[in-house]
Amino acid sequence: MAKLTLVGLGPGSLDLMSLRARQAIIDADVVAGYRAYVDLIQELIDKQDVIQSGMTREWDRAAAAVEQAKAGRNVVLVCSGDAGMYAMAPLVLELLTEQGWNAEQGPAIDIIPGITAANACASLVGAPLGHDSCTISLSDLLTPWPVIEKRIHAAADADFAITFYNPRSRKRKSHIESAQRILLQYREPATPVAVVNAAYRDDQHVALTTLAQFTDLDFGMNAAVIVGNSSSFQYHDWIVTPRGYRNKYQLDDGVTLPGQKRGHALATETSNREERE
Amino acid sequence: MAKLTLVGLGPGSLDLMSLRARQAIIDADVVAGYRAYVDLIQELIDKQDVIQSGMTREWDRAAAAVEQAKAGRNVVLVCSGDAGMYAMAPLVLELLTEQGWNAEQGPAIDIIPGITAANACASLVGAPLGHDSCTISLSDLLTPWPVIEKRIHAAADADFAITFYNPRSRKRKSHIESAQRILLQYREPATPVAVVNAAYRDDQHVALTTLAQFTDLDFGMNAAVIVGNSSSFQYHDWIVTPRGYRNKYQLDDGVTLPGQKRGHALATETSNREERE
Repeated sequence: MAKLTLVGLGPGSLDLMSLRARQAIIDADVVAGYRAYVDLIQELIDKQDVIQSGMTREWDRAAAAVEQAKAGRNVVLVCSGDAGMYAMAPLVLELLTEQGWNAEQGPAIDIIPGITAANACASLVGAPLGHDSCTISLSDLLTPWPVIEKRIHAAADADFAITFYNPRSRKRKSHIESAQRILLQYREPATPVAVVNAAYRDDQHVALTTLAQFTDLDFGMNAAVIVGNSSSFQYHDWIVTPRGYRNKYQLDDGVTLPGQKRGHALATETSNREERE
Repeated sequence: MAKLTLVGLGPGSLDLMSLRARQAIIDADVVAGYRAYVDLIQELIDKQDVIQSGMTREWDRAAAAVEQAKAGRNVVLVCSGDAGMYAMAPLVLELLTEQGWNAEQGPAIDIIPGITAANACASLVGAPLGHDSCTISLSDLLTPWPVIEKRIHAAADADFAITFYNPRSRKRKSHIESAQRILLQYREPATPVAVVNAAYRDDQHVALTTLAQFTDLDFGMNAAVIVGNSSSFQYHDWIVTPRGYRNKYQLDDGVTLPGQKRGHALATETSNREERE
């Protein structure tokens, strides 16, 4: 059946992939993807054709996957993390839009979500994204630097926890230092920061540090940098960002726990029903 | 073994849960969670004790789970979505911090990430989160409304795609209208918006609409509302947010595809190596 499925693999270990993603890969006629991602799923590949060699360009991979699906094959295009976050889904849908795709002619398009890097990396260092957060890519290949810079100012000023994707590359070392300088205009130097390399892969490396010091560490494009908000704190190997600002604004709900020092994000009967978990 | 594992179930269907999450639930002595979430995993529950009845308060559930783990049991506390995004991980880690937890005494703490609602909902409507995005909860139970309002202004002005969690509840109907008014100061009324109820559950309902009109729809606390950025467009049943601003700023990399009208987020050899997928 002519079908193109965009699959988010999650961070990379097979046991953090969903069953649905796993099954789609097993059932495919063709598996397409960047070589490093196809390597992650080698044990699921048997009879499927694989499109990876020489396919170093994202746009070419998208076009090749679309072409195979149009030819009537069941194609899976794999991405690390989530398929829709800085990944192949937007590229493929842009391409199909240009080609005047319609549902009758097909191919059918399906998107299987995955655990994005922000969530995977956060889980290794506690709960740094417990409250409102954003992701910002520091790659200026497709986005002008002034746009990125404006986003960093906005996120810092409005107290979002922030996950930086593509924090550094060989050609682009200064952007993360610029981001640090901007953040220090709004947040304390001691604000907790996590630098997570290759989460849930063999070469995983996790470092907890501070906003003042994190740029001293060695990391590259496979890392994510997570910056806490003004309420985040470090305890042992965790960064914790509370679910709200009850402590800061001293809201009083009349409930305390023994030994409670800072106000807690205590949930009342009402809040439990309102808060999504 | 005394262990407390925080498990993100993903959106709710069993096949979008990771194998690691599934195995942790099967191996547990005790499964704790909000009743609606425990219901989602009934078929994985056999001999495990279940803590859910009467446990309508998040904080009580966290405390009960910690207590059981301290008593030497292998406890799993389940959350929908990701365990660290507006979920139980920040509550539990705050509680353990207050209690002076240390690694030697235990219990051991493990966090298994999951697919958060923003990514799950986005996958049902194309790729609305293809570029920088943020999540904002509209619940003002733990966060003062002026803080939330400032975040909406910041995210709108800096052109983040936005996913609103807890967009409405019985007691709180006006916040989403306020958010809409703020967004209309920065974005076109025709900006694509998706309202996704109960993604990947039996009562799933998906609507594509616009910034001007989405508040006319009926939705509640189980919905997520996704607002595109200034480059997002609707095509058939998709919202697509391009991976960058190449079209807008007319950056020229000398590469075009046949039939290309708007500039594409074309990846060059270099960009492919830099962009995380």
